[in-house]
Amino acid sequence: MAERNVLRVLKGATAFPPPIWMMRQAGRYLPEYRATRSKAGSFLDLCYNPELACEVTLQPIRRFGFDASILFSDILVVPHALGRDLRFDEGVGPRMTPITAQEIAGLDDDGFHVNLSPVYEAVRKIRSELPEKTTLLGFCGAPWTVATYMVAGRGTPDQAPTRLFGYRNPEALDELLNLLADLSADYLANQVDAGADAVQIFDSWSGVLDEAAFQRWCVRPVARLLARFRARHADVPVIGFPRGAGLAYNSYRQQTGVTALALDWTVPFAQAKQLQAVGAVQGNLDPLRLVAGGAALEEGVRAILETLGDGPLIFNLGHGITPDAPVEHVDQMIRLVRGAQR
Amino acid sequence: MAERNVLRVLKGATAFPPPIWMMRQAGRYLPEYRATRSKAGSFLDLCYNPELACEVTLQPIRRFGFDASILFSDILVVPHALGRDLRFDEGVGPRMTPITAQEIAGLDDDGFHVNLSPVYEAVRKIRSELPEKTTLLGFCGAPWTVATYMVAGRGTPDQAPTRLFGYRNPEALDELLNLLADLSADYLANQVDAGADAVQIFDSWSGVLDEAAFQRWCVRPVARLLARFRARHADVPVIGFPRGAGLAYNSYRQQTGVTALALDWTVPFAQAKQLQAVGAVQGNLDPLRLVAGGAALEEGVRAILETLGDGPLIFNLGHGITPDAPVEHVDQMIRLVRGAQR
Repeated sequence: MAERNVLRVLKGATAFPPPIWMMRQAGRYLPEYRATRSKAGSFLDLCYNPELACEVTLQPIRRFGFDASILFSDILVVPHALGRDLRFDEGVGPRMTPITAQEIAGLDDDGFHVNLSPVYEAVRKIRSELPEKTTLLGFCGAPWTVATYMVAGRGTPDQAPTRLFGYRNPEALDELLNLLADLSADYLANQVDAGADAVQIFDSWSGVLDEAAFQRWCVRPVARLLARFRARHADVPVIGFPRGAGLAYNSYRQQTGVTALALDWTVPFAQAKQLQAVGAVQGNLDPLRLVAGGAALEEGVRAILETLGDGPLIFNLGHGITPDAPVEHVDQMIRLVRGAQR
Repeated sequence: MAERNVLRVLKGATAFPPPIWMMRQAGRYLPEYRATRSKAGSFLDLCYNPELACEVTLQPIRRFGFDASILFSDILVVPHALGRDLRFDEGVGPRMTPITAQEIAGLDDDGFHVNLSPVYEAVRKIRSELPEKTTLLGFCGAPWTVATYMVAGRGTPDQAPTRLFGYRNPEALDELLNLLADLSADYLANQVDAGADAVQIFDSWSGVLDEAAFQRWCVRPVARLLARFRARHADVPVIGFPRGAGLAYNSYRQQTGVTALALDWTVPFAQAKQLQAVGAVQGNLDPLRLVAGGAALEEGVRAILETLGDGPLIFNLGHGITPDAPVEHVDQMIRLVRGAQR
């Protein structure tokens, strides 16, 4: 069998037109997702149900034939599997009981992988049902991003509660990040054992830190995670996604050991080209261009293909697709990418 | 009289220890501000009352002896003076009626400067009461940032409503940005006529745009604003603050014509040094280090002084001071900066 095209590009090959998938491609913009979701009970029930998680993972592949599939799950299953409470309230996002410095010292990873076994089961099931040519991606949240929810108990625009916690309790935050790094490394390695071809680390909140905090709370834990993951899977590509990191994307790439970078939509093309010179990049259409459609979508797609199409590129959005994106615009985007001529 | 020290640094001189002021230094963290605020009626009443606006502007100068004073006002007085409704609801921020593409075509600037005359009066009054050595800064919001509130009717974490509006109505958004650029240029020039030594342009929401949108909606209107302002005040320093712009800080500096840059706290030092090589920089302590105090504050201050202290630097926060910052920590920060030795 020829190597899957997303995997080939992740390892440094150039393909034109580039392979394409979308972050959050199994999501609320799809009527078939909403139908399955309504049968599943809670959002967490869906994450822990291998059959239904497999079903929603496959829906966008069936409809659009994307080149990569990504496990349907949530980054917060990791703290949940560690025994932290978690619920998803409709329309307001995740809610947890904020963790204290004392509770961090008492975290216990007994049963962690047993709790996550439905996820591993889902990966196995997805791989068995996925077209042979489709790359399967596993994923986790980066330690910092997962920690922001554990400390604040919710999402906040600038993660002020967790930054402040870290300034006041630097050792406790380090301890939490180290634990999350080690557990997440094993979690990703188990996903690969179950059939994932490559993995992505979502660091959605890395863009709110100053340089010293970025080094200590983002780069260091991800480097630790990578080192531990590499001990089990030396050659499996890892995509890093330090969303909003700006110029710090460069040091992130150099210091963490990730194979490829997912670029958010604010990364300028000159920087994207530099990053692409040392490894594959993935991205980076503003998801709202997909919502708008028309000229805004065409211009956005064209700019990416023209500037990044001559190197290792996986076409994607610069963040997850939003629920208000029309399915017809997704079709239009795929036609624009797959019909591109050099 | 010797030139005021902030002004001298804005023009390229190096001073060590550097001069210091804080964004939002007249604000809720100060008990004397809260006392005046409670007498003023609404927040907008305070902005339009020259005596009280002068009083709160001077409070942090009296208490801390900052090297610069900044007019107490709000960036949204510009659309308000254009006839758009505006109110500030306690604890939830500004609220406006979202503007439509049709309404943009009908905007009328008759009476604009008459409506803003209390602001000009406040500037005159502040200058007359300020210590001779203290630099007085005027300010406005950048066209894009002001437009985000006009279109969305409120602040949002990623300005999705205005990005989408711009993708769907590019000509209407250009028209709005051009109008705001021209009016803001005159507004700033009038503040200088009234006594401001220099001005700052706050582009608080420039960090949410892709490269093409950043060029069209941030850089182009600010360049237009600068050109018009320069026709009246060729030598008055202008500080640009494209918060969150990441690598795009560089092109913003090159293309808009601003004299100096205010850096948000996420700008890495290597980039800050590059930017400082062509003009003064201002910043960029994470405001939460000020809230935390102790070692987090000391480390943050030291890092800035060590890396940027040998060039034109105005010490400041990387964003406005937050209401929960203890006054004693502000004292501690000032002692650390003013007591620094090279």
